[in-house]
Amino acid sequence: MAVSEVQTPNVYLADCPSRAVLEHVTSRWGVLVLAELRSGSHRFSELRRAVGGVSEKMLAQTLQTLERDGFVHRDAKPVIPPRVDYSLTPLGREVADQVWTLTRWVEAKMDDVFGARESYDSRR
Amino acid sequence: MAVSEVQTPNVYLADCPSRAVLEHVTSRWGVLVLAELRSGSHRFSELRRAVGGVSEKMLAQTLQTLERDGFVHRDAKPVIPPRVDYSLTPLGREVADQVWTLTRWVEAKMDDVFGARESYDSRR
Repeated sequence: MAVSEVQTPNVYLADCPSRAVLEHVTSRWGVLVLAELRSGSHRFSELRRAVGGVSEKMLAQTLQTLERDGFVHRDAKPVIPPRVDYSLTPLGREVADQVWTLTRWVEAKMDDVFGARESYDSRR
Repeated sequence: MAVSEVQTPNVYLADCPSRAVLEHVTSRWGVLVLAELRSGSHRFSELRRAVGGVSEKMLAQTLQTLERDGFVHRDAKPVIPPRVDYSLTPLGREVADQVWTLTRWVEAKMDDVFGARESYDSRR
């Protein structure tokens, strides 16, 4: 790649590849899968149970995207019946810690959010 | 509300209101708007320029959702022509700091992501 093509990653640019990666880790299911995997390795069915509302298709797609980006490790054990375990890579652990903190923060601030909504709606 | 109806917020439950709030702050445009507002108050047109690719409609919708949740303050100045400034509330600042850190982390880790993708694709 020519030097002139090398660009500093910038998520504010629509075409920057970092924008897509940000969207992978902040996607509806990406956030919850990453946060849930902090507690350890999961089988597909365990993840599906843990993350309420996710379809089989969306979970498979989310895991594949996170695996390709290097955040999730997929371990297919050569046993019968087949067994596949998903876990965080060291890189995935770093981002999972961040999104997990965010999920806990949101849960802790719901009273503030409800209060803000009440005030907002009363002005309309 | 009866005590039995009070539920501890839990983003893993599809129906929990905290799930929706998490989606507001991690939405494609929510993340970038919050992160950009860390640098100070913005007019609508300034935000639109800063966040590459956002449409007028999506930006308006994102700002309204973040305002209603209590993260963004909308200040409509009674001047001619009308002037509207958007800024973070103290609550919004807390979440903006988190998502901003995440954007910087993603930008900094793009080489690792590219490496992981190369390795993933070579195994397919």
